[in-house]
Order: sequence, then C-alpha cells, then structure tokens
Amino acid sequence: MFQEIINNVREKLPLVHNITNYVTVNDCANIVLACGGAPIMADDIGEVEQITSICTSLVINIGTLNERTIKSMFAAGKKANELSHPTVLDPVGAGASTLRTNTALSLVKEVKFSVIRGNISEIKCIANEAAKTKGVEADEGDLVGSDNLDETVALAKRLSAQTEAVIAITGPIDIVANSQKAYIIKNGHPMMSKITGAGCMLSSLIGAFCGANSENLLAATAAAVCAMGICGEIAYEKAVQSGGGTSSFRMHLIDAMSNLDAATLGGGAKIEIR
Amino acid sequence: MFQEIINNVREKLPLVHNITNYVTVNDCANIVLACGGAPIMADDIGEVEQITSICTSLVINIGTLNERTIKSMFAAGKKANELSHPTVLDPVGAGASTLRTNTALSLVKEVKFSVIRGNISEIKCIANEAAKTKGVEADEGDLVGSDNLDETVALAKRLSAQTEAVIAITGPIDIVANSQKAYIIKNGHPMMSKITGAGCMLSSLIGAFCGANSENLLAATAAAVCAMGICGEIAYEKAVQSGGGTSSFRMHLIDAMSNLDAATLGGGAKIEIR
Amino acid sequence: MFQEIINNVREKLPLVHNITNYVTVNDCANIVLACGGAPIMADDIGEVEQITSICTSLVINIGTLNERTIKSMFAAGKKANELSHPTVLDPVGAGASTLRTNTALSLVKEVKFSVIRGNISEIKCIANEAAKTKGVEADEGDLVGSDNLDETVALAKRLSAQTEAVIAITGPIDIVANSQKAYIIKNGHPMMSKITGAGCMLSSLIGAFCGANSENLLAATAAAVCAMGICGEIAYEKAVQSGGGTSSFRMHLIDAMSNLDAATLGGGAKIEIR
Repeated sequence: MFQEIINNVREKLPLVHNITNYVTVNDCANIVLACGGAPIMADDIGEVEQITSICTSLVINIGTLNERTIKSMFAAGKKANELSHPTVLDPVGAGASTLRTNTALSLVKEVKFSVIRGNISEIKCIANEAAKTKGVEADEGDLVGSDNLDETVALAKRLSAQTEAVIAITGPIDIVANSQKAYIIKNGHPMMSKITGAGCMLSSLIGAFCGANSENLLAATAAAVCAMGICGEIAYEKAVQSGGGTSSFRMHLIDAMSNLDAATLGGGAKIEIR
Repeated sequence: MFQEIINNVREKLPLVHNITNYVTVNDCANIVLACGGAPIMADDIGEVEQITSICTSLVINIGTLNERTIKSMFAAGKKANELSHPTVLDPVGAGASTLRTNTALSLVKEVKFSVIRGNISEIKCIANEAAKTKGVEADEGDLVGSDNLDETVALAKRLSAQTEAVIAITGPIDIVANSQKAYIIKNGHPMMSKITGAGCMLSSLIGAFCGANSENLLAATAAAVCAMGICGEIAYEKAVQSGGGTSSFRMHLIDAMSNLDAATLGGGAKIEIR
Repeated sequence: MFQEIINNVREKLPLVHNITNYVTVNDCANIVLACGGAPIMADDIGEVEQITSICTSLVINIGTLNERTIKSMFAAGKKANELSHPTVLDPVGAGASTLRTNTALSLVKEVKFSVIRGNISEIKCIANEAAKTKGVEADEGDLVGSDNLDETVALAKRLSAQTEAVIAITGPIDIVANSQKAYIIKNGHPMMSKITGAGCMLSSLIGAFCGANSENLLAATAAAVCAMGICGEIAYEKAVQSGGGTSSFRMHLIDAMSNLDAATLGGGAKIEIR
C-alpha cells in the first residue's frame, strides 16, 4: 500500500502550494522536491487563489504568521476547498499565543482540512477548543490532556470525527487517524527534534503525498509520516558514521528522502493499526 | 575571457543588493559570498534606494513577491538605473499568476535591466507580452513559444533587442544572448532541478559577476552560467561518491563555487557561440 | 566558568524569542537547538509580547527590518524589559542606511539591552551617535573610529557604560566588555566571514547562553563568543579534511556546536582579560 502511494508521488509529480513560515521554508521546498513533488511558495493575497488553482494540494503552516499572510491563508484554503484539493494544516505553536490559537481555530472552522498535523500540544489546543465549541465538558478536556497512548489515539479519532480531517500527532510515537482507524507509527529518531523544521517538512511532505493520492488521504498521510521517520533513521546512522552532528543529520534526512525507494518504505515501516 | 571575469569578481569584491524571496535567500547570499562577492538583502521601501546606492549591482527576484516588496523593487530598480548599476531580473513564476506576470512585465517596462534570467516559460511569458505591446501578431507569439534551440536563440536575441537586456534562458541547455550574439552553454547537471534555488542562486551570481564586469555584461553573464553549471557537474560527482542525495548536492554546489578557480572555469566551459 | 555556563544551557533549555531576518533565520534556529536551547521565531505585533513572555530571552536582529517588524521589535523589547529578560541586539548593517541607523539608535534608547553584538562598523555607528546625544565632541568620535585594539576595548567599555549593555564586537579578534572588564577572544577562523549568518547565529547563541545564565551576562556572552569561535576552528579542520568549501564549513560549524562539550569549550578558549 505505502509502496503504491510513494510510487504515485514519483509518477504524478504533485505541485504543492505552501503558505508557510520563513524559518524552514527552504527545507520544506527541498523535501517536496526530494520526494518527487514540486513546491510553490506564494503568500500574497493578490495571487494565492490563482496559485492554489494550478496546484494539486495546499499546505498552510502558521509558523511565522502575520496579519497579511493570515488573510492569504483563509483565501487559499477556501479556494482549495472549492476545488476539492487536499489541504493540510500545520498549526505551529497553537497554544503559545492567542494569535496562533485563534488563527488555527478559525482556520479549522472556515476551511475544511484534509489533514491536520501537529505535536501533541498543538493538537490538544485545537481539540480542546473544538470540544468547547461543541459543549464538551471540562472533564473531557482533561482526559484529552493526558499523554497516554490509548487516550491520545482516542483524541485523534474524536478530533477527526469533529473536523473530518485526518489527524496526525507526531512525536516519539506518531499517530495518524481518522474517526475509525488509527496508524501507530514507531519510525523516526530523537535527533529529529534537534533540528528546526522536521515537523514543517513533514507537513509539506504530507501535502505532496496527499496531492498524488487524493482518494486515500489516511494511508497517504501515514505513508508520509513513515517515510519521514525512516529517513530520520537512515540520517542518524549516516550522521553518526561520519562523526557529524545535527546539521549533517538534516542534510542526510533530505538526502534519504531523495533516495528513498518504495521497497525501503514498505519494508521499514513500523506500523500498528487500531 | 571567462578567467579574467571571475578574477575580477575575486579582486573587486562586488557588493550585490538582492531583493529576493524568502525560500532561497540563504543560498543566494552564500553563493555570492562563495564566488567572491558580498550580498546585502534589504527590501523595505524606506531603505532600498540607499542600499542600492552603496552597492555595485542589484538583483530583483519575484519568487515570493508581495504588495510591499513590489514597491521596493520598482524604487530600487529606478535608483540602480539612475546610477547605471548592473541590474538583474529573475521573473520567478511569471505566467503562473497574473500578479507575477504583471509585475514582471511592469518591471521590464519601467526599469532598464542589464540581464533577465529565467527558465523558458518565464522568458516566453515576458517575450510574448513585450511583443504584444509592440504590436507583433499572434503568429509571432506562437513561434516564440517553440522549444526548438534555433527558435529559442532567436527568441532570446529578439527579446534582447526589445529590452536591451542580456537574456539568459536556463534549462538542460542554457542560452545567453544579446541582440547580436548568443552563447549556447552545455554545462550543468539534471540534479540542479531537484533542489530549490539553482535558478535564484544563478541570478544572484550573475549580479556579482556583472557587478565586477559592468563593461562586459554578455560575457559576464555567460561566465556566471558556465560557472554554475561546472559547479553542478562537480557537485554531482561528489554527491554520488559519498552516496548522498539532493541535499549533499546542494552543499557540494556551493562548496564548488567557493573553490572554483579561473582555470577550472576556463577549461570546463562547454560553449558555442552563434 | 565557561564550562558551568554551557552546562547551564544544556540543563535549563532556554527558550529564545528571535525577531530576526529571513536570510539566516534557519541557521539561527538550528544553532540555538544545537547548543541546547529552543528557538521561537515570531514577529507579528499581535503576538510578540505574549511570545516574549513565555521565553527566557529575546534576540532582536535588524538584518531585514521593515516597517511592520520594526514596531514588533520595540514592543517585544519593552515587554522583555518589563519582565527583566536578557535582551540581545544585533544591529545588522547599522550605518549602511538611515533606516538601519535610526532603528538601531532608537532601539538602544527605548529598550535596555543586556547585550549588543555587532561588527566594529555597526558598533561604531551606535557609539558615535550615542556619544553625540551625550554631547561628546568630534575628536572623541574620531578616536572611537580607530581600529586599534586598545582603542576598541576602550570604545566597548565606554559604550557599555553609556548603555549598561555588554558590548560584543566581533571580527578577527573579538571583544566582549562591560564598563569595567573586557575579554579579548582569539578563537575563530576567517572562513566564518565567507558564509552568511556567522554573526546572526552568534547573536542567537548569546540569547540562549544569557537566557540560561541571566545572573552573569558578561561571562555568558564571552562563553558564547568562544564557543562559536571554537566551533569555527573545528569546522574549518573538518571542511579541509573532506576537501569541502564554505557550505561544508557551515554544516560542520553547526555540527560542532551540537557536539561541543564543556571540556572542549573550557580547554579551547583563547581569552585574555583586561
């Protein structure tokens, strides 16, 4: 299954519109190219709808959001919805400031996302609020706050039921879920948290994978998460071998994606389905 | 000839003002430093004219243009013209949105560029419109649309005649032309299209080469295109040797530029003149 | 002393708010992670005060300042002062344009910085003006303009007395001083000036070091400058060994920071105190 998904990326060359942050944008562009897609970064309100229209998918990342680009995120998201393009949200730092929390929550309300990917804190931030707006009580909120795996899987499924988006919660263990089914993914390496952009790159990668597999968003997202994790494992081995550190690791990570073949992805995936 | 050109860059340390995109800006700054120049990135309307004034050349790249920076592009471009500084346009994505197309065309109308560098689609976008505004018919437009080498050389020469800019069309084969003379350049490697920024880096490199060779813009542009291509060839060899991928390639590309000597440039250039 | 300082960084995991430029922002984030801190980049006026509040220190870098982000710099700086957070200024290009000079001078007037780090030209720009506003005569101004080490140490101490900030002047020889005491630091390698961002990375690194050592800002700043210099020395060795160039050097520099242990920092520091 995952092999077919990555082969589709290489064959269909999905064009991914990214409205993203200026910290990791170069890595995001390079990982999309490395997996076989093509990136376009464009954030001016005067062109985002048109750029989204010529692409196969849209990734919205709020990492360095500002008043100007927030407007562009909503405009592009709505256009992508009109065109039924796969649309990915990366709510970077939701919970860290009111602006980020409110922007993420408003985006989730006004745009129908295909995938929402974040770390557990970001996803909880979105889930708690989404819950509140649906009248779910405080205790429920507390439960969602637990970092227990079972409970986090339940959170992911519940948030997916509320939003109709595939939910990807990434960290030491990754969860990719819709309302019915969850992939528990144990690929990756801790060094991924020692470079900036591992999460942002994954969101853009999901944009490429979903762009080429729009009929199968859950599996496409899980495949992207596995692919990133496997590349992290390969990169760690290479960085250690060469006596390198975090910057070598980052280079080897993108290298590994550009060299990743379907067999390595299929064989290396450490997944469990619930 | 090319040897003298690169030696001038190393001796004169040209200061290059870049108004460019946030995707590849770091690579652009590093390639300018690698070739022997010095980059300044500045895009606020409150300083662009002054920054241009202290520099030797200006590069305008519309890769992530926005309403604010577009104004700065015009202001800087006009100031560079007043001072007769070499001025390079990289019309990234012209043709992909109305905003990009209109901005590129207006820039070409209101600023006299020394060099316009783009891929064939971007250059055609500019050429077709330039033709229209000069009353050239649709058939002419179609002819310009051909991807045949002879026709593309003709397109480059014609666009140069119209704009008085050196035209650099880069791709598997590169063409650098003024209205009278064209260099056909066969350096480079396909992996250059698998990283973001190869084109942007080249435009900034042209800014440095032209800044140090303002009396010889056609040859300076051709030398920069050859230098980039030769570094791509070296980088590909190094990436393959180390079992690397696209990110290794990117590193080796900038490395090669920082190590490029005049003899390697002179000896490695694969050029034909028409 | 320096060993304790870097150990504090690794133990306290300081969260560093960076309002910085889009050229070197990725390197700044990665160097903060490499040294053991965590970076947040946020520049919208709607969130900068809140982001600063959750961080341990603030770094303001004017490398690609614009009208919008200048306002955010002042707001964040004032909030950091309210909260007594260590606050670092990198006046990139002060002196190159009126906008940069005026912004840097106004920031120094309205925000109390813990550390101001720049090259000699940037620091002179700030010092001359600060002097003028205090009625210091022209001759004094000329003296400050000398590049003699003794005079530069005197400049650093005088500017520190005026601003109450630790002054870090970096270049072939680095000076880190308060009004009473100066560290002369002879670590580093000339190749650091052949990549973009060595200075910006150092400013963000100082933010992390001061965030974890707020009771000892002078030594924390000197330790960060030494750490960066030692990593530059290591990186140069590695780049040469592998036949690499400036981009390899950049990678090895961040690698070295991620691998730097307290003993290497303590043993490698080439310092003299005046």
